[in-house]
Amino acid sequence: MTLKTGEQYKESLRKMRPNIYKFGELIEDVTSHPATRLHVESVAHSYDMAFDEKKAPIYTTTSFLTGKKAHRWNTLMTSVEDLVGNSEMKRDQYRWSGTCQGATCAGWTILTALWDATYKCDKENGTNYHERLKNYMLHVEENALALSGAITDAKGNRALKPSQQPNPDHYLRIKERRSDGVVINGYKIQICGVAACNEIVFIPTSGFGAEDADYCVAGAVPRDAQGITIVETRRPSDERDLEEGWDAPKVGNITQAFIIFEDVFVPNERIFLAGEFKYTGKIIGDFAAIYRAAIGACVAGQGDVMIGAAINMARANGLSQKVFQDKLNEMAINNEITYGLGLGAMLKGKKTESGTFIPNPLLAHTNKTQVARLPYQTKVMCQDISGGIAETGCMPPYVDFRHPEYGKKLLESLAAGTDGETRARAARLVEWLTVGGGIPGCMHGGGSPDGAKLVVKAMTPWEEFAKEAKRIAGITAELAEPAAPKK
Amino acid sequence: MTLKTGEQYKESLRKMRPNIYKFGELIEDVTSHPATRLHVESVAHSYDMAFDEKKAPIYTTTSFLTGKKAHRWNTLMTSVEDLVGNSEMKRDQYRWSGTCQGATCAGWTILTALWDATYKCDKENGTNYHERLKNYMLHVEENALALSGAITDAKGNRALKPSQQPNPDHYLRIKERRSDGVVINGYKIQICGVAACNEIVFIPTSGFGAEDADYCVAGAVPRDAQGITIVETRRPSDERDLEEGWDAPKVGNITQAFIIFEDVFVPNERIFLAGEFKYTGKIIGDFAAIYRAAIGACVAGQGDVMIGAAINMARANGLSQKVFQDKLNEMAINNEITYGLGLGAMLKGKKTESGTFIPNPLLAHTNKTQVARLPYQTKVMCQDISGGIAETGCMPPYVDFRHPEYGKKLLESLAAGTDGETRARAARLVEWLTVGGGIPGCMHGGGSPDGAKLVVKAMTPWEEFAKEAKRIAGITAELAEPAAPKK
Amino acid sequence: MTLKTGEQYKESLRKMRPNIYKFGELIEDVTSHPATRLHVESVAHSYDMAFDEKKAPIYTTTSFLTGKKAHRWNTLMTSVEDLVGNSEMKRDQYRWSGTCQGATCAGWTILTALWDATYKCDKENGTNYHERLKNYMLHVEENALALSGAITDAKGNRALKPSQQPNPDHYLRIKERRSDGVVINGYKIQICGVAACNEIVFIPTSGFGAEDADYCVAGAVPRDAQGITIVETRRPSDERDLEEGWDAPKVGNITQAFIIFEDVFVPNERIFLAGEFKYTGKIIGDFAAIYRAAIGACVAGQGDVMIGAAINMARANGLSQKVFQDKLNEMAINNEITYGLGLGAMLKGKKTESGTFIPNPLLAHTNKTQVARLPYQTKVMCQDISGGIAETGCMPPYVDFRHPEYGKKLLESLAAGTDGETRARAARLVEWLTVGGGIPGCMHGGGSPDGAKLVVKAMTPWEEFAKEAKRIAGITAELAEPAAPKK
Amino acid sequence: MTLKTGEQYKESLRKMRPNIYKFGELIEDVTSHPATRLHVESVAHSYDMAFDEKKAPIYTTTSFLTGKKAHRWNTLMTSVEDLVGNSEMKRDQYRWSGTCQGATCAGWTILTALWDATYKCDKENGTNYHERLKNYMLHVEENALALSGAITDAKGNRALKPSQQPNPDHYLRIKERRSDGVVINGYKIQICGVAACNEIVFIPTSGFGAEDADYCVAGAVPRDAQGITIVETRRPSDERDLEEGWDAPKVGNITQAFIIFEDVFVPNERIFLAGEFKYTGKIIGDFAAIYRAAIGACVAGQGDVMIGAAINMARANGLSQKVFQDKLNEMAINNEITYGLGLGAMLKGKKTESGTFIPNPLLAHTNKTQVARLPYQTKVMCQDISGGIAETGCMPPYVDFRHPEYGKKLLESLAAGTDGETRARAARLVEWLTVGGGIPGCMHGGGSPDGAKLVVKAMTPWEEFAKEAKRIAGITAELAEPAAPKK
Repeated sequence: MTLKTGEQYKESLRKMRPNIYKFGELIEDVTSHPATRLHVESVAHSYDMAFDEKKAPIYTTTSFLTGKKAHRWNTLMTSVEDLVGNSEMKRDQYRWSGTCQGATCAGWTILTALWDATYKCDKENGTNYHERLKNYMLHVEENALALSGAITDAKGNRALKPSQQPNPDHYLRIKERRSDGVVINGYKIQICGVAACNEIVFIPTSGFGAEDADYCVAGAVPRDAQGITIVETRRPSDERDLEEGWDAPKVGNITQAFIIFEDVFVPNERIFLAGEFKYTGKIIGDFAAIYRAAIGACVAGQGDVMIGAAINMARANGLSQKVFQDKLNEMAINNEITYGLGLGAMLKGKKTESGTFIPNPLLAHTNKTQVARLPYQTKVMCQDISGGIAETGCMPPYVDFRHPEYGKKLLESLAAGTDGETRARAARLVEWLTVGGGIPGCMHGGGSPDGAKLVVKAMTPWEEFAKEAKRIAGITAELAEPAAPKK
Repeated sequence: MTLKTGEQYKESLRKMRPNIYKFGELIEDVTSHPATRLHVESVAHSYDMAFDEKKAPIYTTTSFLTGKKAHRWNTLMTSVEDLVGNSEMKRDQYRWSGTCQGATCAGWTILTALWDATYKCDKENGTNYHERLKNYMLHVEENALALSGAITDAKGNRALKPSQQPNPDHYLRIKERRSDGVVINGYKIQICGVAACNEIVFIPTSGFGAEDADYCVAGAVPRDAQGITIVETRRPSDERDLEEGWDAPKVGNITQAFIIFEDVFVPNERIFLAGEFKYTGKIIGDFAAIYRAAIGACVAGQGDVMIGAAINMARANGLSQKVFQDKLNEMAINNEITYGLGLGAMLKGKKTESGTFIPNPLLAHTNKTQVARLPYQTKVMCQDISGGIAETGCMPPYVDFRHPEYGKKLLESLAAGTDGETRARAARLVEWLTVGGGIPGCMHGGGSPDGAKLVVKAMTPWEEFAKEAKRIAGITAELAEPAAPKK
Repeated sequence: MTLKTGEQYKESLRKMRPNIYKFGELIEDVTSHPATRLHVESVAHSYDMAFDEKKAPIYTTTSFLTGKKAHRWNTLMTSVEDLVGNSEMKRDQYRWSGTCQGATCAGWTILTALWDATYKCDKENGTNYHERLKNYMLHVEENALALSGAITDAKGNRALKPSQQPNPDHYLRIKERRSDGVVINGYKIQICGVAACNEIVFIPTSGFGAEDADYCVAGAVPRDAQGITIVETRRPSDERDLEEGWDAPKVGNITQAFIIFEDVFVPNERIFLAGEFKYTGKIIGDFAAIYRAAIGACVAGQGDVMIGAAINMARANGLSQKVFQDKLNEMAINNEITYGLGLGAMLKGKKTESGTFIPNPLLAHTNKTQVARLPYQTKVMCQDISGGIAETGCMPPYVDFRHPEYGKKLLESLAAGTDGETRARAARLVEWLTVGGGIPGCMHGGGSPDGAKLVVKAMTPWEEFAKEAKRIAGITAELAEPAAPKK
Repeated sequence: MTLKTGEQYKESLRKMRPNIYKFGELIEDVTSHPATRLHVESVAHSYDMAFDEKKAPIYTTTSFLTGKKAHRWNTLMTSVEDLVGNSEMKRDQYRWSGTCQGATCAGWTILTALWDATYKCDKENGTNYHERLKNYMLHVEENALALSGAITDAKGNRALKPSQQPNPDHYLRIKERRSDGVVINGYKIQICGVAACNEIVFIPTSGFGAEDADYCVAGAVPRDAQGITIVETRRPSDERDLEEGWDAPKVGNITQAFIIFEDVFVPNERIFLAGEFKYTGKIIGDFAAIYRAAIGACVAGQGDVMIGAAINMARANGLSQKVFQDKLNEMAINNEITYGLGLGAMLKGKKTESGTFIPNPLLAHTNKTQVARLPYQTKVMCQDISGGIAETGCMPPYVDFRHPEYGKKLLESLAAGTDGETRARAARLVEWLTVGGGIPGCMHGGGSPDGAKLVVKAMTPWEEFAKEAKRIAGITAELAEPAAPKK
């Protein structure tokens, strides 16, 4: 069964041990609890799209390993087409739910990033991680799993290395090595889509050296494995998800979690790195290249929704789209920049020896810098078009519109280009997208723009440019960096 | 008693009839209810500052009418110094509370705007609005009142004039004229600071013509006047104000309300315009010039807090301010631009015949366009510096940090440059300022930037510029607008 | 002989009839005249690169028509790799010469754009333009020609169609149809690279209708055909090209010309469209998509030179590159955005029935909007880093540095991180790139950004976005454009 | 005679010893030589405006010293009104000439900056510089002089102090102290308006310490003093000034010069500082505050001309201003920002003990950062509106339009919304303003924006902001800079 329906997927979640908390309470069933069900529903929709004639090419592909049709997020990315498929699926998912969908994203990307690193590690060290990973890939594909990807460690004091931290658990670590597996301990934080996944795939948050070998651990565990406690984070205005009414849209949702690993045992067949620090930089580098090439499609998809939301809001205010056409054009341009620049990174990607396909890092990281910039401008234009009612959702809450004494009058006061409820709903969507629960956190999600700039710096051939410019200027003298730079 | 303490001011609010609702419930005491008390507290702080040696020059001034020392917001603005005083007070208020403070702002500004309009109206029409207004000013000063200013009408279909609306109440209107006063009906929406005011001052939302004379009504009423029902709007994440803990800062707050006027009687002595449509454009123009010159100081004050919040967050993450100095400089520059440009508008202001002093409209409206632009950039930089934990407040809620089983571990995971609680508080402030309840709504507050651009367009001498450029270019031929412009 | 050396190419130019003027004088030999030789030299360099082991893959490719190795600009673009090859070559050319190179660009692009249009036209109308074009392509390839592409008409009054213009020659037109060919008349203006080309390929400047059929003419003529007069335009500071010394770099150059066609006879075999107006929109559309996808590489290549020039200037001032690293990163990011976004347009391109490959128009035109934006920011950063001496080249001219009395002192005064001459040369390059002869004119070159925005508007599915947003917001009511939009 | 006509002023220039060179030749008469006469004419126009009823209030004021009416640039700035007058005059001058006017600017500003420094120096050291300065002011006023202000030294290696330079003349210095005066030697470079001045006022380029006391020299000398050689710099496209025709506008002009001081004797009565290093920082600080508050008006004035030029160009192209109204609004907004922000700096200025009035440095330097940013955007919009013909002046030179064979046809080809000559003139103005001789060099003129940011950094109370934010966030823990910052 390489393809599941949304209902089958949800059934698989219902069978798991409850170990997720929000607002101090244990969530018994993630498929029905208001804090998690919307994210689950959007993942379920992605499963269902495997059976939709029009959408199936976006949501499924042919497995590189088995030749079977499989959910796209259950297969390795081995070509530029696969990378583009990642982009297309993400833009479509965002258009569907209005926001981020963790459980079909980072875990999948991690597996592709691990593919070549384990291949190289085995070749150079005689380990057998690659074979384990292949078996895991087959397991994932066969069971059509939803995976979350846990990367970000708690980190503690940023001036210290993992092994120097006062608290040894600030980075996830190997606490004990056993013949049949390893015991891991520590925190992974701000992890997307955990509530909607079957299993959690984890890698180190960064490249580490020999002194931090115990922190160089990658593997996979069931979400409800013994020793795992998950606490959901609190997003802007997320209490509205728990309520009736229209104060938040009831389609998309994101969940982000703090995961506490306490003496979690991971059997050998699910361990894909255990101390070989040399490969950690490559893993995170390949992950980031894939992720940051595709993230332009994510924010473009949400930008598409912002365009639609702004048009609706203009009309609900009684105004034509034409009044705002210049701003709408700029919004569309912003979307296409991050989408198209990500595609450019893919086109300039390279095939690895083991068969995966990795986008061009310089272009991918350049894209990240724009993902941390342009969507903010798009939001401002969306608010600008939408008017004061949408800027901060400046209307009474749903419950007041239902108040027996004054509710009807409130609704009446909102009527404009349409009835009051429609206008309120349109405005709440803009609020949700721009200052509410729909914000996907793209500035720092998947790493910071300042980190991306470091890659741009590292990959730009500054001296070569200086040399070309010297030739053009007709300069023959030496012109090197001064000994002691003055700021 | 032209000066009140904060406690005296709060006492005055407690005496009023409860007529404010939020979340479907009547707020019995605005000074203690969590939805309103923070705003009241910040206004009370402004009252107390009259008795603070260092701050008194900012928060008080000498009354133009009585020569007595009075709260600044209880006096007319009659000089460039008074306008600057408005700016200074607002920047200081924002620095104190982190956000907007309605009850010492728009009502006061309206009174200054009405001063010259009533003077002109009386002079030309033999009315006696100016005398009434003077008496009202004395009443305001003598009782040291907090005033909200109600301008924005519900507006309905924006393609229709007030009198053409299907619903006659979409703009506040004179429903009945009596010998002793007028009866008014309609909606004023998104009104700031109502919960913290003693009285409500109202003017038309725009300039109107003869056909809409009944909508040309200005006056003042007690907040709890018979027939007035007030419903608070729902800001981003404002449920957190109702909770314990640190998920929202507990200093500032803004309140914005929908006000339903149902057959509210306003006695003649509190009516300052009743049908004289000719003056409505001037009133709103003078109001906007004062408001939009000073609003640069508002967002600068909040920007100052964002700078501080970002520095704290950097340190809480274990990083030095120096790492982010370029971004911090840009934030400071943005603050000084809107602040300084507003001052420029004041410096180029003009004294009216009746004694008030009105900033230069071109510069004031230019400032508004930047207030709708630069603070957004400042927010992005604040989030950029602060890291993922602050971007959307990506941490568990307070209640989970207090959970007996895993709370301690969560706090431990957050420790970095400081303890976990401090880091959480620092991050929640950034969230609150950038995507939460602290957003003042400056894009459309006091009118939209597109409206400001219309003023820029109207006040720029395009033909004069074209003529100068012709002279410089040495052009002697006719060069006029083509008959039929092609887009 | 499908491959020529630079010397062979120059020899071919020397054989032509002189018909190019600048500053009122006829240029006898374009390969040696200071106003044109630098452009010719840069094209000659591109020819020579066919024989350079490292660069040959960039500057040559395998001909789709003959299977022979040919200069890239002498072959059709029939795959995504060919489009990428266009990009790579342009970035490399800009890095070499510092600026635009017309004679290997627009003519080539036109031929690819004509390929499918003539195919369709023949199929639908029984004409034989495609066969003629194929023969012409073989001629071009076999003779390794440099081609300029003439598109922009003089246009006259932009509110009138070609046939409505008072002056019938404001658009190039068929003046007479003969059995053996057509006689054409009119102006093509601002045409790049004419001075360095062997032949001129021309198409209509826009899509036209039936009433303008005589203006729908495409074809090819030798640059020195009877009836053609060419007048070079005057670029900023281009007198310096005529001088000795270092006041302008002596590597790159662009030439742009006004071409006067006076009763020029074009034989049938060189006519590729003669009245079939229906295909004009497609021709210009395909041209623009190819051109605007690749132009991102042009400005990126110049941006690379600006980075190098800024680094050199910093060092010449005695400062380290590190002082300006943030700005240099931003420059590099701008380069990669336009380069990568163009690649994205190529990746999403489509193969035509006749075999050419056309980039995605939405992404290509989006790229154009950024090409009209980002390089300007890059220039500002280049000037910012370089200091006052480079901003406007604020130094005495070369001749003064050679003055017997004070020249030596002037040079001495300029010495800083290096000797005075080196610093002067470094500064003059920055001036040339940012406010001098090196500016390629990318804002309007190949059409205006406003035109690109019209394409963005036309290709964005606004209603689909509005519909998706309605679903997400939970809106079920009708929400259409209002009947009479209010501005 | 405190007021001169333009003709009288020109007469005074004609009497001077020729010591100015350009293009290797000595300029015999600056009032008629094409390289200098336009600048002289624009200064003459400012003189004439003293006798123009409407403009006199802008160009003259009442002398603080004598109570007489004097040219504004011959009086001290002692009030906010005087500072505003500086702004108003500059905006008007730019509107008149389209560009910068050095000889009524920096010299004047230096004198105001020296006023308080000499007062303090005398008070603390018993020197009598202030008295000398007063006498010089009276001389300037009485003779209605035009003054240039020489600040920028050649600087040499920026990593070394003046006294550490290999070449002792890289900063202007006291070479010899005599009883009757001092002998100075060195270079002042990039000095504006020297060709149009009567005398040169000089101060050190920066604040220096005790070891550089000999470089701490301020004073005044006639432009043609013995030992002074002046070489004009080469601006973009400035050869066109030497030509007939319309390829450059023939109104405004700027001149910038390298000044070589070789053993120039300055008598004691013209020396205002000679070694008292302690006051150099204050002098340059006060100068910068005045200059950078007013420079916003300079670029606003040029921006006004750019608006006019763009409107003319649109019309010359046959298009209506309405098509571009949004862009025109943005241009106007940019102008008002720098103008208004400078006014804000003036309003917050302070009176010195000696009577001058100095703008607020934080706001003035903030303004400089915008002067280095917004005019560039304005230029881009000007080019965007104007079309390809104006972007780089992409037309044949004037001489070709006069060519007997093809000149008429060229003119004909340019006709559009107007005749060809008018369109060419309109386009050349845009070229001149955006990439030609009209560029005033505002990025680094009067110091760099990076220098301005250092002032912003120094004057912003970062710790105070951090403390306020801590209070608002409810943080009580210590939160200081980490010991070892990590980048």
